[in-house]
Amino acid sequence: MTSELLGLTIGAVRPLDAAAMAQTRELQARLTKPAGSLGELEELSVRLSGLAALSPPPMLEPAHLAIFAGDHGVHAQGVTPWPQEVTAQMVANFLAGGAAVNALARQTGVAVTVVDVGVAADVPGADGLVSAKVRAGTRDMTVEPAMTRPEALAALEVGIATANALVDGGARVLLTGDMGIANTTASAAVISAFTGRDPGVVTGYGTGIDAPTHRRKVEVIERALALHGPAWGGDPHTDPVAVLAAVGGLEHAALAGFILGAAARRVPVILDGVIAAAAALTAAALAPSSRDAMIAGHESVEPGASVALSQLELNPLLSLGLRLGEGTGAVLAYPVVAGSVRVLHEMATFDSAGVASKDEHKQ
Amino acid sequence: MTSELLGLTIGAVRPLDAAAMAQTRELQARLTKPAGSLGELEELSVRLSGLAALSPPPMLEPAHLAIFAGDHGVHAQGVTPWPQEVTAQMVANFLAGGAAVNALARQTGVAVTVVDVGVAADVPGADGLVSAKVRAGTRDMTVEPAMTRPEALAALEVGIATANALVDGGARVLLTGDMGIANTTASAAVISAFTGRDPGVVTGYGTGIDAPTHRRKVEVIERALALHGPAWGGDPHTDPVAVLAAVGGLEHAALAGFILGAAARRVPVILDGVIAAAAALTAAALAPSSRDAMIAGHESVEPGASVALSQLELNPLLSLGLRLGEGTGAVLAYPVVAGSVRVLHEMATFDSAGVASKDEHKQ
Repeated sequence: MTSELLGLTIGAVRPLDAAAMAQTRELQARLTKPAGSLGELEELSVRLSGLAALSPPPMLEPAHLAIFAGDHGVHAQGVTPWPQEVTAQMVANFLAGGAAVNALARQTGVAVTVVDVGVAADVPGADGLVSAKVRAGTRDMTVEPAMTRPEALAALEVGIATANALVDGGARVLLTGDMGIANTTASAAVISAFTGRDPGVVTGYGTGIDAPTHRRKVEVIERALALHGPAWGGDPHTDPVAVLAAVGGLEHAALAGFILGAAARRVPVILDGVIAAAAALTAAALAPSSRDAMIAGHESVEPGASVALSQLELNPLLSLGLRLGEGTGAVLAYPVVAGSVRVLHEMATFDSAGVASKDEHKQ
Repeated sequence: MTSELLGLTIGAVRPLDAAAMAQTRELQARLTKPAGSLGELEELSVRLSGLAALSPPPMLEPAHLAIFAGDHGVHAQGVTPWPQEVTAQMVANFLAGGAAVNALARQTGVAVTVVDVGVAADVPGADGLVSAKVRAGTRDMTVEPAMTRPEALAALEVGIATANALVDGGARVLLTGDMGIANTTASAAVISAFTGRDPGVVTGYGTGIDAPTHRRKVEVIERALALHGPAWGGDPHTDPVAVLAAVGGLEHAALAGFILGAAARRVPVILDGVIAAAAALTAAALAPSSRDAMIAGHESVEPGASVALSQLELNPLLSLGLRLGEGTGAVLAYPVVAGSVRVLHEMATFDSAGVASKDEHKQ
């Protein structure tokens, strides 16, 4: 069972356009540089052409980051030393422009929107805030499903609607951000479910926990998966929404919808860290071709992120030891992604610039 | 024997300021993010404080890239399939704004200046061009020293003067760029000399050569080092200018001066690829503390770059499979470097934002 908007969105996700990709490969060969010398930027530009079904693909600006914020019932299990109030406090910090992601987004020219999809506290209206709370935090996944199916679907729709609104507003690339104390716990649970890897392998130290807390975190995830695993009967891909509802977060659901929304609109979406990676697995389970719209911004320190990206066959662009979330890694990767397209628009060709090519002059 | 300007510049290079670094470490701990969560950006911001002797260090804008262009007598040995005219043609392309580095510099907000320090052809004056030709290309290093000592010193001074002019003009960070057909051959020779590693280990495929050309390239470098090695008698660090003059390029000399000039002004310099890495070894041999001003923008595909950066104990920020040169890797790394400083200026502290910190609430 899916909602109408979700069904339409999944149905709109199309494979890459091979003709546009071939055209961009041919264009790359004519630009004034040795073939292949721009490394990962070249293959990325080819994929972005396939996504847009256009060569060259549109310039990737304006760029827009959406930070989805939600709280987690599993916080009660002591999986993090940070108090739950910090989620709402950080939302206020984002809206005031004082968080790391705000500073980095100003550096790279990315606009920021905050979406309250599930903060446990009241969040007062403000410029740059979308109030779309589905529920004031999830339930404790060790006791019951974190969300009901209708709640998970509603949060997915918040993400789809956000992507549609930003693309309608002119955004040509979307970036994922997140805020939610305890959300690395939900991420690890989702990643473990979709990849079949043990919780111990995919669970990291989040924003900084000690070894006993880490052991508790792994045990909490094991307990939740043992409780809910029977609901998807060994194959999470038969009912991805059930996985999300059981052990995900409201921001994970919204992010999965956001990714699907971007893919349906043929707009690339730059993933941040482990929370986005968990959402990306969910999106790919719902619509496999949505993977083609995803760009892994960076390699998070969180082990679950690497496991998820590997399953999605996505190579992260940056590796800077980040483990902050918020969208910081996506925002830092944005100039690389936009640059890969910009060279297609703005570089001279060997002919137009009167530059001799290697092959013409080879002796 | 060094020139007066070079001597003064070397004398002005100072160690990092420990007090400013300690202040920035303390500031990092108060910003609204988990300690250490910005990974490499945090340590970078601490080093940049030490370089500026100020906490926080100045914001890194405006940013300015200088592309030093020169030709190479060793081109006659068939080390590359590209004709020598391409150096001048690409200089015209840079000045017209049509090269890859121009597009990427527009993406990240970096201004571009081209310096003709040794192009073999006449380069007509243009906006954005500094005409400072020391000689129309180097001599063939397999036959005689590539430069005389006065030529090498003059090219070093071109680089110092360029750094000074850009910093006087307001630049708060400098980026290295280069253009010169056959300059990966000179780079590998310089790197082999300063690191003691075999030419076969540090010589790569440049912008794209076949295996027979690669074997010839290695053999050419071995021959040049056998010819000139006795001049520095087993220890290149006793007379770095002799190494540079024997097997370097005019753009390598200018880049070494540019790096020293930046270090003397306490302004960071983002290194591009293997040509910059060879110049950086030269600069560090002349003034060891200049290493503290250097930021390795990216990990080039060229093996010599990794060997040089490893000897300099510099970790490259990006790894994108680039092998183009021009400054492309430095320009793409710039937002990460600037972002590391911007967070110090623009982020709220736990106190100012009313965000609870982990330690306050730990139970």
